[in-house]
Amino acid sequence: MKKNIIVGQSGGPTAVINGSLYGVVSEGLKQTGVCRIYGMINGIEGFLHDHYMDIGALDSTNELELVRTTPGAYLGSCRYKLPENLNDPVYSQLFEKFDEKDIGYFFYIGGNDSMDTVSKLSRYAAKTGSDIRFIGVPKTIDNDLVETDHTPGYGSAAKYVATVVREIATDATVYDNKQSVTIVEVMGRHAGWLTAASMLARKFEGDNPVLIYLPEVAFDQDAFIEKVKECLKTTPNLVVCISEGINDGRGTFICEYASDVGIDNFGHKMLTGSGKYLENLVKEKIGVKVRSIELNVCQRCSCAHLARVDLDEAVNAGIYAVHAALEGATGKMITFVRNKSVPYELSYGTADVNIICNKEKPVPAEWIINEGSDISDAFIDYARPLTQGYVELPTKNGIPLFAYRR
Amino acid sequence: MKKNIIVGQSGGPTAVINGSLYGVVSEGLKQTGVCRIYGMINGIEGFLHDHYMDIGALDSTNELELVRTTPGAYLGSCRYKLPENLNDPVYSQLFEKFDEKDIGYFFYIGGNDSMDTVSKLSRYAAKTGSDIRFIGVPKTIDNDLVETDHTPGYGSAAKYVATVVREIATDATVYDNKQSVTIVEVMGRHAGWLTAASMLARKFEGDNPVLIYLPEVAFDQDAFIEKVKECLKTTPNLVVCISEGINDGRGTFICEYASDVGIDNFGHKMLTGSGKYLENLVKEKIGVKVRSIELNVCQRCSCAHLARVDLDEAVNAGIYAVHAALEGATGKMITFVRNKSVPYELSYGTADVNIICNKEKPVPAEWIINEGSDISDAFIDYARPLTQGYVELPTKNGIPLFAYRR
Repeated sequence: MKKNIIVGQSGGPTAVINGSLYGVVSEGLKQTGVCRIYGMINGIEGFLHDHYMDIGALDSTNELELVRTTPGAYLGSCRYKLPENLNDPVYSQLFEKFDEKDIGYFFYIGGNDSMDTVSKLSRYAAKTGSDIRFIGVPKTIDNDLVETDHTPGYGSAAKYVATVVREIATDATVYDNKQSVTIVEVMGRHAGWLTAASMLARKFEGDNPVLIYLPEVAFDQDAFIEKVKECLKTTPNLVVCISEGINDGRGTFICEYASDVGIDNFGHKMLTGSGKYLENLVKEKIGVKVRSIELNVCQRCSCAHLARVDLDEAVNAGIYAVHAALEGATGKMITFVRNKSVPYELSYGTADVNIICNKEKPVPAEWIINEGSDISDAFIDYARPLTQGYVELPTKNGIPLFAYRR
Repeated sequence: MKKNIIVGQSGGPTAVINGSLYGVVSEGLKQTGVCRIYGMINGIEGFLHDHYMDIGALDSTNELELVRTTPGAYLGSCRYKLPENLNDPVYSQLFEKFDEKDIGYFFYIGGNDSMDTVSKLSRYAAKTGSDIRFIGVPKTIDNDLVETDHTPGYGSAAKYVATVVREIATDATVYDNKQSVTIVEVMGRHAGWLTAASMLARKFEGDNPVLIYLPEVAFDQDAFIEKVKECLKTTPNLVVCISEGINDGRGTFICEYASDVGIDNFGHKMLTGSGKYLENLVKEKIGVKVRSIELNVCQRCSCAHLARVDLDEAVNAGIYAVHAALEGATGKMITFVRNKSVPYELSYGTADVNIICNKEKPVPAEWIINEGSDISDAFIDYARPLTQGYVELPTKNGIPLFAYRR
């Protein structure tokens, strides 16, 4: 008997999350056991309010192909946590809606919070004897999911950070007759994978960014100032990359050291990032020209530096998810297993979603060197293959063309 | 008798300022009347301290070709204003250095401050009977030079802004079940050309960015809040683009309304951008989710969205400068004359540098519509041709390869 598929996206967007959506939809349409493919609008939260679309119908247009290379989340996203208590009425409501639409396969593309949703729905299904299969498709620029070598979205974000930091370093050195410090703040609250990718920006040994700080290691402000002074002797235009989540190792983010200071015109606390805080610290303690740059949301939504490897893997994760579900898997997340780095070789697998959700994978301690101010070359072997390859984007009037819901 | 060329770069970098450098050097090397080509390191300021290189020698390597597509300023830049008084000894020092190096032709790639340098040096030459020819090659992402249709660097920066604003708008709408305002602050202190380019991000009529504010029109905070409220009714995830230099029309920048408020840990005033100020204003007056994004230095130094038209024109400006100087011109800047927009057709000319320096060209008043909150379609005809075409960049390990001085 034919069943329908439903697919949703959840959490922050990435450059390739729509690649996985494309994978699920295009592969789902090929299956003889599948009839229609629904997309939840704004994830499980939107679906609860009956917001969904017939995304399989896009296949008859060029739109589905355009979805593949569009950043953001085509279906819209949500940050909605299902109740811990499986007896909560929201579950029976959801499963009634699934049954009404004759859903046989549920795919959720997201990070560890989204895997929590897959975990709860699959456990509720097991409890109630529902045969709907629930599969998670990983996605996060943070690269912090356990049980997988890496996550779709990371490779393109890493390439974005490496390229942009190289550009910023080029800009920062045009007045190289004057000393200066440029602090670049990269996304990553708890895991430093994306900030570590800034080391790929170096054109030669000792090139900028000379200093790199991750949240995995306690940040010592005095030691930082000493390092900066030391490095300025050989690199007059110093670029430092930091994770937004650098912290003192005792539970306080570095940005929090500043947050109780500024009050805006309206009496609100002015939130300062860690980069801004360190900018002021360098100005005060060293007195050289200093600026901080917070890389903006383009880290997660730019298509400028799409890595072909990353996009292909994101699509394949969606394809593999369809196969896994049709073969009977449920309560699983698709995982990446690296066979080797040189030449790079990957296989796909699955892991129990219950041991993935709500966990975070840090950058290995042994890759963080020089008193927490640099990253070892082992990271290059890990990350570089993920950033490879160019994706030609469809354009119109010179600007990349994006799919969007009408 | 053969003479030498000297070339320098000055002011802020652009994505194609090295394209003009490439044009001067590659064309200079072809001239029978030219012997060597020197590059000033860090502009006229560096040259005063005898910092220069034999940039013509790069021709025997691949490096010169790499310079063409490298953003930033390969020779390094400066912000140095020559004295108003032509009797200042710095002039005789400079001309002695020129004569020592047998300089016949001086090229300076920069914006209106740099044209001031060309003006003064050419006037000193006229006064003292020197036959060195001084030519300015325009460069600025601000597009604010008079006497030229546009400036090299603007097209790529405009394409960058349009693309990134489209990406940001895509990111901003993933939670489209909630109202939100995203304020994007674009470079441009006095002229709004670059901010206006954000209108090219629209995918359809009425698309984001729905509101665009330039420094050319007085900014009324109350009217702004009313516009935002009105627009949120039809566009729940609203994107607003503003120039950093928006002002109240009475000489005060909007960002200055906030700047006397926050004091950091060290007692310094915390400088807030106009975007951050408006973020707080929207939070206070409307209460919806709001964030501001300051587009960083990549606006001027990213090679991600190089426009082929812009790069080609930058190279041609350098080539044309060499021809103009050899034909006897001095005290001139290379200008762009648009023959028509559809199909786009450009010719090159020269204009008296004295009527260019220290002047700024605003966006025409008739192109700024809807009480200063939008840009007319006439701008599209003007700007779109300049953003066209793709440039394939040399890469290594997946990251764009840049030239740099050893």
